[in-house]
Amino acid sequence: MPLESGFRALTGVEAALNIFLSSFDPLPRTETVLLEDAGDRALAIDVKAPRDVPHYNRSAMDGYAVVAADTFGSSKDAGVILKLTDVDRIRSGQCKPVHTGSPVPEGADAVIMLEYVEAAGDGIEALAQVSPGQNVGPRGEDVKKGDVVFKKNRPLKPSDVGLLASMGLTKVTVYGKPRVLIVPTGEEIVPRGEEPGPGQMNESNGVMNYLYVKRFGGIPSVHGIVPDKREALAAALKEGAAYDLVVTTGGSSVGRRDLIVDVLSSMGEVLAHGVAIKPGKPVALGLIEADGKKTPIACLPGYPAACAVDSMVFVDPAVKKLGHFPPTQYRTQKALLTRKIYSEAGFRTYTRVSMENGRATPLRTKGSGVLSSISMADGYVVIPEDAEGREAGEEVEVAFLE
Amino acid sequence: MPLESGFRALTGVEAALNIFLSSFDPLPRTETVLLEDAGDRALAIDVKAPRDVPHYNRSAMDGYAVVAADTFGSSKDAGVILKLTDVDRIRSGQCKPVHTGSPVPEGADAVIMLEYVEAAGDGIEALAQVSPGQNVGPRGEDVKKGDVVFKKNRPLKPSDVGLLASMGLTKVTVYGKPRVLIVPTGEEIVPRGEEPGPGQMNESNGVMNYLYVKRFGGIPSVHGIVPDKREALAAALKEGAAYDLVVTTGGSSVGRRDLIVDVLSSMGEVLAHGVAIKPGKPVALGLIEADGKKTPIACLPGYPAACAVDSMVFVDPAVKKLGHFPPTQYRTQKALLTRKIYSEAGFRTYTRVSMENGRATPLRTKGSGVLSSISMADGYVVIPEDAEGREAGEEVEVAFLE
Repeated sequence: MPLESGFRALTGVEAALNIFLSSFDPLPRTETVLLEDAGDRALAIDVKAPRDVPHYNRSAMDGYAVVAADTFGSSKDAGVILKLTDVDRIRSGQCKPVHTGSPVPEGADAVIMLEYVEAAGDGIEALAQVSPGQNVGPRGEDVKKGDVVFKKNRPLKPSDVGLLASMGLTKVTVYGKPRVLIVPTGEEIVPRGEEPGPGQMNESNGVMNYLYVKRFGGIPSVHGIVPDKREALAAALKEGAAYDLVVTTGGSSVGRRDLIVDVLSSMGEVLAHGVAIKPGKPVALGLIEADGKKTPIACLPGYPAACAVDSMVFVDPAVKKLGHFPPTQYRTQKALLTRKIYSEAGFRTYTRVSMENGRATPLRTKGSGVLSSISMADGYVVIPEDAEGREAGEEVEVAFLE
Repeated sequence: MPLESGFRALTGVEAALNIFLSSFDPLPRTETVLLEDAGDRALAIDVKAPRDVPHYNRSAMDGYAVVAADTFGSSKDAGVILKLTDVDRIRSGQCKPVHTGSPVPEGADAVIMLEYVEAAGDGIEALAQVSPGQNVGPRGEDVKKGDVVFKKNRPLKPSDVGLLASMGLTKVTVYGKPRVLIVPTGEEIVPRGEEPGPGQMNESNGVMNYLYVKRFGGIPSVHGIVPDKREALAAALKEGAAYDLVVTTGGSSVGRRDLIVDVLSSMGEVLAHGVAIKPGKPVALGLIEADGKKTPIACLPGYPAACAVDSMVFVDPAVKKLGHFPPTQYRTQKALLTRKIYSEAGFRTYTRVSMENGRATPLRTKGSGVLSSISMADGYVVIPEDAEGREAGEEVEVAFLE
């Protein structure tokens, strides 16, 4: 691990993430929601079929329900005549028209397809033989009542919800979404809608993380801006203990005004401070301890580009674990690099690139705070710790992290 | 194109999609929303910076703001003494402490870094020379007032919204989301919460498409179940003309009870009916014409697995075009096929697979209606029209369509 001025030592990205994620458990809280609200929620129970699917013997073809034995020996040249009926229970010598999906009447055990049948007076002539069960989907063929259809923890896709609906369910029990308190901090931050003076800036990390947390699968709340004062920061963290996760932005480095990590260490535990990631190095991960409960907290740096990377790298997996969701899998695409990317060995580096015609161009930036480059960014090239940059012309994998 | 019983001829998937998408325009409707509501919305305007970023001359380092000329000739062995001040405007011979991000006072034109400075009485000794502009980010360096920061139609990522917030915006003008009326049809469909008799089934395609449309970026409304009656179907389509897109489910094939396409052709235009896709062949695409307005409509089949595929293949791109969103890009993964997949040449085939350890297993299914296989599905192998299946052991690309 590289040594850095300010930080005694940096923790590796994987190590920091592992320490953080293993410090808390998924939420036990469940709720029962209407199917309309069940999309992308994680099942809190094994779902068992409340009835057989299909719940009746179902014709698999358009044709006639028959007693199969009546057709034995029939052929194109030697058909058998069956009498049409519309009763609910047929006997030998009878048949009833059915179409795909309609119930096969009691007494019938097969369906003969339309194309093997000719009209014959008040009946039909069956010109082929069918075996018992042929063209019939028996009750419970798809799913038997009581079968486990979906296992606990499955994130429900729209088609999964469709299946639950078709089995007769109207509600389903899922895990509660993680409630996340986002706390923007900093003397220099003024609310949106106010004009910032020199040295001040409008609050932006709060709304950015609000949208990230929603996307990650959590329920975000944004706290008012908290100044760089120990008492105010401690009060905000204490409020945060009533949530499932706290995310602060700003003041997470090691300067004079960087107090959040000091405050956290006095109220709980700092699991990592300073991570070998660029941008995003001044991040802290830990636990708030209050009322006999431990609440995970991620203290993100105030530089917007660093804050964004740390949110995707640390906050997303935390929300996923709390909410019983699988880790995010990002879409990636191969591209040729138009310019060299420099990176420092020992750091995992996230370089923003713009994409055009299968070519990735690293965005020029003077520091992690230069927001304007983000407005052209399409994705990221992630350079691992054991590499030192990428060459112009090299094939790289672009990850679409957002 | 293959000929099929029932359909005179099938339209290819790309051809059907092109005819459909070129029959309507993106929605002109715009709305101005709070930044909290702007995530994943498409910009309806070019966004111009309302002020310079930064809006003041900003120190790029921790150190002292100085008049650069005062330091000329300074070195480790021959420093220059500067007097500390805390006024807003400094003069030659003075200096003022600054940290990264703080304003550089009037009169100063450079910042000398902490490490090149030593304390000296009531001032400092500058032990290096700095040139004018050094370590100062001048006002407007990132973005100049009036510069276009984001272009019209850009879908806003969380970090984009962060940038808008940092520039002083609180709201932004985006395109309206497409309003989609979903109309489940069929004599045999009973509402969720009711017990279906033999031959009946609970409504499930409505809620499935409700969740799809939300995911695609639209605002879904689900109509009550409409029976297979011309008048009732026509009345529902007429209601649908008040929306931006109509999606019906069921009754889209060519049987006696498949009336929706007949009704559509009497009220507007059928652009395609019967597409070379499996599952999902009995799909129709067209336009409802009412009150001098044309409303696109997709009539999806009632078999849930077919309905799902057609929703992803035809409804998703329609919602994206209406809403000014870019087409969905699916995440894919290479996998080895554990079993042969059969497909018919001329059809684009969507085969559901379950994934385990980099191996994809096609799900056994007797027909497009077997919902239970979906509960194990992780993704799809899409087999193009010019292929006939895939061999066991072959490397395939699995698309995570939902």
